[in-house]
Amino acid sequence: MRFFDNGDGLTEARGFFCSGVHCDVKGKKDGKLDLGIIYSPKPCNVGAVFTTNDVRAAPVLYSQSLLKDEALFHAVVANSGNANACTGRQGMADACTMGKETARQLGLSAEQVLVCSTGRIGVHLPMSRITAGIRDASEDVVAELDGATAFQRAILTSDTRTKSCSVRMDTKYGEISVGGVVKGAGMIQPNMATMLAFLTTDASASNPYLQKVLQRAVDRSFNRITIDGDMSTNDSVILLANGNSGIEVSPQEKTLDAEFAEAVEAVCRSLAKKCVTDGEKVTKFICVSVKGTLSDSAAESIARSISNSLLVKSSWYGSDPNWGRIVDAAGYAKTGLKFELLDMRYDDVEVLQKGEPIESNKAQWKEIVARPSFSITLDLNMGAGGAEVWTNDLSEEYVAFNKSE
Amino acid sequence: MRFFDNGDGLTEARGFFCSGVHCDVKGKKDGKLDLGIIYSPKPCNVGAVFTTNDVRAAPVLYSQSLLKDEALFHAVVANSGNANACTGRQGMADACTMGKETARQLGLSAEQVLVCSTGRIGVHLPMSRITAGIRDASEDVVAELDGATAFQRAILTSDTRTKSCSVRMDTKYGEISVGGVVKGAGMIQPNMATMLAFLTTDASASNPYLQKVLQRAVDRSFNRITIDGDMSTNDSVILLANGNSGIEVSPQEKTLDAEFAEAVEAVCRSLAKKCVTDGEKVTKFICVSVKGTLSDSAAESIARSISNSLLVKSSWYGSDPNWGRIVDAAGYAKTGLKFELLDMRYDDVEVLQKGEPIESNKAQWKEIVARPSFSITLDLNMGAGGAEVWTNDLSEEYVAFNKSE
Repeated sequence: MRFFDNGDGLTEARGFFCSGVHCDVKGKKDGKLDLGIIYSPKPCNVGAVFTTNDVRAAPVLYSQSLLKDEALFHAVVANSGNANACTGRQGMADACTMGKETARQLGLSAEQVLVCSTGRIGVHLPMSRITAGIRDASEDVVAELDGATAFQRAILTSDTRTKSCSVRMDTKYGEISVGGVVKGAGMIQPNMATMLAFLTTDASASNPYLQKVLQRAVDRSFNRITIDGDMSTNDSVILLANGNSGIEVSPQEKTLDAEFAEAVEAVCRSLAKKCVTDGEKVTKFICVSVKGTLSDSAAESIARSISNSLLVKSSWYGSDPNWGRIVDAAGYAKTGLKFELLDMRYDDVEVLQKGEPIESNKAQWKEIVARPSFSITLDLNMGAGGAEVWTNDLSEEYVAFNKSE
Repeated sequence: MRFFDNGDGLTEARGFFCSGVHCDVKGKKDGKLDLGIIYSPKPCNVGAVFTTNDVRAAPVLYSQSLLKDEALFHAVVANSGNANACTGRQGMADACTMGKETARQLGLSAEQVLVCSTGRIGVHLPMSRITAGIRDASEDVVAELDGATAFQRAILTSDTRTKSCSVRMDTKYGEISVGGVVKGAGMIQPNMATMLAFLTTDASASNPYLQKVLQRAVDRSFNRITIDGDMSTNDSVILLANGNSGIEVSPQEKTLDAEFAEAVEAVCRSLAKKCVTDGEKVTKFICVSVKGTLSDSAAESIARSISNSLLVKSSWYGSDPNWGRIVDAAGYAKTGLKFELLDMRYDDVEVLQKGEPIESNKAQWKEIVARPSFSITLDLNMGAGGAEVWTNDLSEEYVAFNKSE
């Protein structure tokens, strides 16, 4: 398995074409690319994971309605600048029109096109400009221009850069590629803004198989950086498989199955990490690992409690190895933590041993917390549960006040 | 019932004396008052509510161990600058010494003195300086100096101002006073720093009665601004009743009981609001009210979800009536909200009517969100549940980026 950071992502898998155009979704005439299409002349099987928010945007509801075990797709159309969320019946009609119009331009039927949107909530889409954009973007993919970068730029909102990667697998049947792009959160966490991720592969596979592989990969990547309850109205992760390699992946082929699952997970994990490090003014990537809990969910509660504490994030920014704030956040997860049993480490350096601070390591703590990337491990020594969450620091003036007590 | 904002607070109830001294807890020699005593020559009944964090500071554990139905107290000793939390056996010994030393100076027995600390976690108390401070602070209360303001200053950490209030009740038996002070969170929410609140009254009442009255008042005040799971290691609210008025309050005296409960609640609510508005760089106080839910707890989840969203807080700071962010936060509380049933108001002005934005009110929305204090009401139209949470906006550079999309 060879991993390629950044690059074209989506078009690394053969038979996919992308485009990105400016159609002025926000009416600002700023020239920002804001509508894109992913297109495969061959029909694709699909796996997809969506937000579980009570309030789901029209394109999410529309796309979900198209996904069936036997359904095949040729395209995804996506816009930034407007989420088409909380837009009522008109919003549903607009999402449907986006799909239909894309289908018409590409000579498809409407149910072969998935629809995504990201941007402001509660504003109706400017449909005449969207339609013009779909026409332009369709022309580009039909001409088979390699618009991978243009598509990546078209889906960004407050992101500071495009984020993509790909993996090439040399299987005994030949080569398979899996590529992906993500647009994330300009701010601290994915719950702060919509996350859209698209993956393409030239493997052949059924919808239920792709769904299973994608859900597992998402649980181990995007869900490591997202509080389940905190998803936006529009979060979507979509995996398209066009079978262009002629190689079929299924649970029956155990080695291939495992390799493919690993490739999809590798792409998802890389994209998820890129989301975390592209937070506005973020200076550090931190892996919070919790083990020794009575259950995995207890470990996850503690890891999220720590990762979401503004005080903890502020101290990371200030390179202050303030373990007290971390223990406080772990304590208010209320999992039954006993401080006198707690072990803690920064990377491999001990901070607490059964609740006793190892003060002689203090210089090393400081050195580690000053790094751009480090890990924090808590062992509650109470059971076999464990979980990992990826997060970042919090900078800004707000922090200047708070970074050390 | 007459309400007095700010002022002496604790010493409004007759027979209480306070002091605050500088004993250099942090070793900075900055002259900041950092140790204080509340003292009543008459023994006091007590009600007290403490943090439910898994990790509780030594003074919390120590004070909890003294509280019994029949126990009487004469004093509280409190320091700022050091939380005496996560300090192991030495920390427990130090909390005990603080109580004993105060008792010795005041001619009491150790179990008549409650102990509180606030400040940095994981650092041992400088006991020789603390002991010297206790001696000085004891001298002042024995001399019956009115040190109410000095005590208020002594417990502050990152607070920007002292916070107190009192209530005078004219009952058919005569006058009763209830006063209080609080030190809160320098930052956005009480979960960001320890909250200590002290209330005094010259009413006479049993411990179980005071406990019941205080718990109810805390639920309707401090717990309106605190996420249950997010308390610090040291949060404490203590109500002392010395009976100096000669008037006994009990459930048997229905009118008096109701009046007293109302007075305690009024003091707690005022102090809680002061905590919210004393957040660092806070410019707005917002009451988030949710109703029409299937249960009270569903309403509370939604209200907290909205109140804790950095995106929502940022838009309040920017005076941007961004109802989409509010609805998104309400949705990820995952209570089963149906957008098409949702009504929403800023103060008395409609924002959404069954999911439809009332755009003609837009100018009024902007005008309200620009105010220093306003309310947001969501009605889910699904049941009889309801809850209210008090919160504030989030300012700072961090917000400059994020305040409008």
